[in-house]
Amino acid sequence: MPAQADDRVLIDFRTADDAGVYRIDGDRALVQTVDFFTPIVDDPAVFGAIAATNSLSDVYAMGGRPITALAIAGFPASGLDEGVIRQVFLGGFHVLRGAGVALLGGHTVQDQEIKFGYAVTGLVAPGDVWANAGAREGDILFLTKPLGTGVISTALKFGRAPAGAVDAAVAVMLELNARGADALHALPAGSVHGCTDITGFGFLGHAAEMAAASGVTLRVEAAAVPVIAGALTLAGNQSGGLRTNESHFGASVSIAPHVDAALIELLFDPQTSGGLLASVDPARADAAAASFAAAGVAAARIGTVLPRAAHSVLVV
Amino acid sequence: MPAQADDRVLIDFRTADDAGVYRIDGDRALVQTVDFFTPIVDDPAVFGAIAATNSLSDVYAMGGRPITALAIAGFPASGLDEGVIRQVFLGGFHVLRGAGVALLGGHTVQDQEIKFGYAVTGLVAPGDVWANAGAREGDILFLTKPLGTGVISTALKFGRAPAGAVDAAVAVMLELNARGADALHALPAGSVHGCTDITGFGFLGHAAEMAAASGVTLRVEAAAVPVIAGALTLAGNQSGGLRTNESHFGASVSIAPHVDAALIELLFDPQTSGGLLASVDPARADAAAASFAAAGVAAARIGTVLPRAAHSVLVV
Repeated sequence: MPAQADDRVLIDFRTADDAGVYRIDGDRALVQTVDFFTPIVDDPAVFGAIAATNSLSDVYAMGGRPITALAIAGFPASGLDEGVIRQVFLGGFHVLRGAGVALLGGHTVQDQEIKFGYAVTGLVAPGDVWANAGAREGDILFLTKPLGTGVISTALKFGRAPAGAVDAAVAVMLELNARGADALHALPAGSVHGCTDITGFGFLGHAAEMAAASGVTLRVEAAAVPVIAGALTLAGNQSGGLRTNESHFGASVSIAPHVDAALIELLFDPQTSGGLLASVDPARADAAAASFAAAGVAAARIGTVLPRAAHSVLVV
Repeated sequence: MPAQADDRVLIDFRTADDAGVYRIDGDRALVQTVDFFTPIVDDPAVFGAIAATNSLSDVYAMGGRPITALAIAGFPASGLDEGVIRQVFLGGFHVLRGAGVALLGGHTVQDQEIKFGYAVTGLVAPGDVWANAGAREGDILFLTKPLGTGVISTALKFGRAPAGAVDAAVAVMLELNARGADALHALPAGSVHGCTDITGFGFLGHAAEMAAASGVTLRVEAAAVPVIAGALTLAGNQSGGLRTNESHFGASVSIAPHVDAALIELLFDPQTSGGLLASVDPARADAAAASFAAAGVAAARIGTVLPRAAHSVLVV
C-alpha cells in the first residue's frame, strides 16, 4: 500500500507491530487490531473465550487498555446447531465483560468453516506506546507465558494430545495479558522499552521482528524459556504455520548446537493468545520480576539485548 | 447477549442502528462498525472501492466522521492471481484516503471465496448522534441515492445485466455518503431527527426499523422514490436476500394496490452502499433540499412521518 501522509497515524500496517496507533488528541491515541481464526479446541464457549483473549492481547502488548470490540464471525449455512453459535459468542462476551470491554456490534457471514474473532479498540497515551522498535542494548527480556499452544492444538486435532496437556494449553490461552501488562504499567514510566505478544509467527518470529525493528540482537537462554507441561513430548506435531515460521525466520536466528530439537520446535511454534515479550530497562529488571510475582504472573527472565550482530536472535 | 452495564455505551448491538457508539469523554464518542462481503462486480479494484465506500457509510449515517479502518479479507489459498488481491486492497485504500481515513492494519484468512471489507471507527459528539429512533411525527423523509443495486448485481451474476445498468449501479455504490451527510451537517443543529443508511435489509426493512425504533409510521410516496436507470426492467432478478426481506418485513408494511410490482421488488431489494434515509424537521426541509442540491447530492423528498399506526411503513 502507498504511504499515508497523516501525522495522526503513529503506527500502521507498514511495521511489524501488534496493532495500529492513531492519535485523537494531545493526550490519547486509539490502539486498533483485528484477529479471527478457526476453532482450535472442541468446546465452543472455550473457543469464543480464547478468541476474545487473543484479540485483546495486541492492545495490551502496545501498552494500551482495550475499551470496545466488534465481533467477526463466519458460520456454515447449515449443519451447525444454533446453540453452538450462541456458545461461541457468549464465551467471548464473558471475557470482554471481565476485561471491561464493551461489545458494540459485529458482522457474521456464511462460511464453509467456523471462524471467529474481534476487531478491538483501546486507548493509550501517545508517549507511552510500547512499540516493537524500542528494545535497547542492555535490556532484560521477560516472557510472561510458556510456549507450546500450537503443537498441543495440532496434536489435539489428530487425537494425540493427552488431556493434561490440552488443559494446560487452554489455561495458558485463556490467561488475559492484562495482568502481565498491569505488572509492567506498575513500574516507573519509561521502564518498558519494547513489547510484543507472541502469536502466529512464534516466539522466534516475533523476537526477530522486535530485534530488527530495534536494530539490536536478542540473546535468549534456551534453558530459561518456559514451556507448557507436556508440550516438549508433543513436538513433532508440526502445524503448517510452524514450518512456515522456520523457513521465514530461520535465517535470522542462530541456535547453539546443544539446544534440544524439541525445544527448537516450540521456539518456532505459532502461538494462539501467547504471552508478552517485554524488553525492560536493566535498572528496573528486579522491580519488574517482583511486580510480575506480586500480580501472580509466571513471567520468566529469558535473556538480554545485545548490540546488533549478524543474527536477530541468538539462542544459547 | 446479556446487557452491558456500562454508561459509556450509548448504542450497541441490541438496537437496529447502523453502528455502535461509545463515549470516550464529555465531548466525543467513537462510532464503530464492521462489514465485509463477497464480490458483487468483476473488477477487483472496483470491488475493493465499493467495500470501503459501504463500510464508511454506517459512520456517516450515525452523524459521525470516520477516522480509521482495519481491513478484513478472505482469499482462496490457491488459484487466485496475487495481482487481484493487491487490486482489491488498493481500490479500497484509495477510497479511504480520499475520505481522510487512515488504514491502521487488518487480518487476512484463507477462504473458499473472496471476502473483503473493513472495521471502521469514527468520531461523533455524543449529543449529535443520528440514531434510528429519532424520527418524529411531521418530519420530512429524504433518500439520497436511488434503489436497485441488488437486482442489478444479481442480473450481472447471471449475465443478464446491460452494461448501462451495471455502470449506473457501480456509480451509485461508489458515491460516498460523506457528501449527503455533510449537506445535513450544514443545517442548524437539531434539524436531523433520525438517519440510517439503506443496506442489506432493503429500503423497506431499514424504513420499518426506523419507524419501529421511533414509535412512528413512515408514509412513503412510491412515485417519489428514486430508482437506478434500468433497475425496474431487471426486477425479477431476485437475490435470496430480497426474498428474506419480503418475508421478514412484509407484515410491517402496507403497500397501496396501484404500486407497480417491479417497484415493490426494488423497495425490498438489499442494497450495497445504499443512500441515507434522513428524517428531517419539517421547518428545515426546504433548507435540507437546498443543501443537498448545493452539494450535488440527488436526494429525493420521498415522504413524511405520521403518528404510529398499524403498519411501520405505508407506501402510497
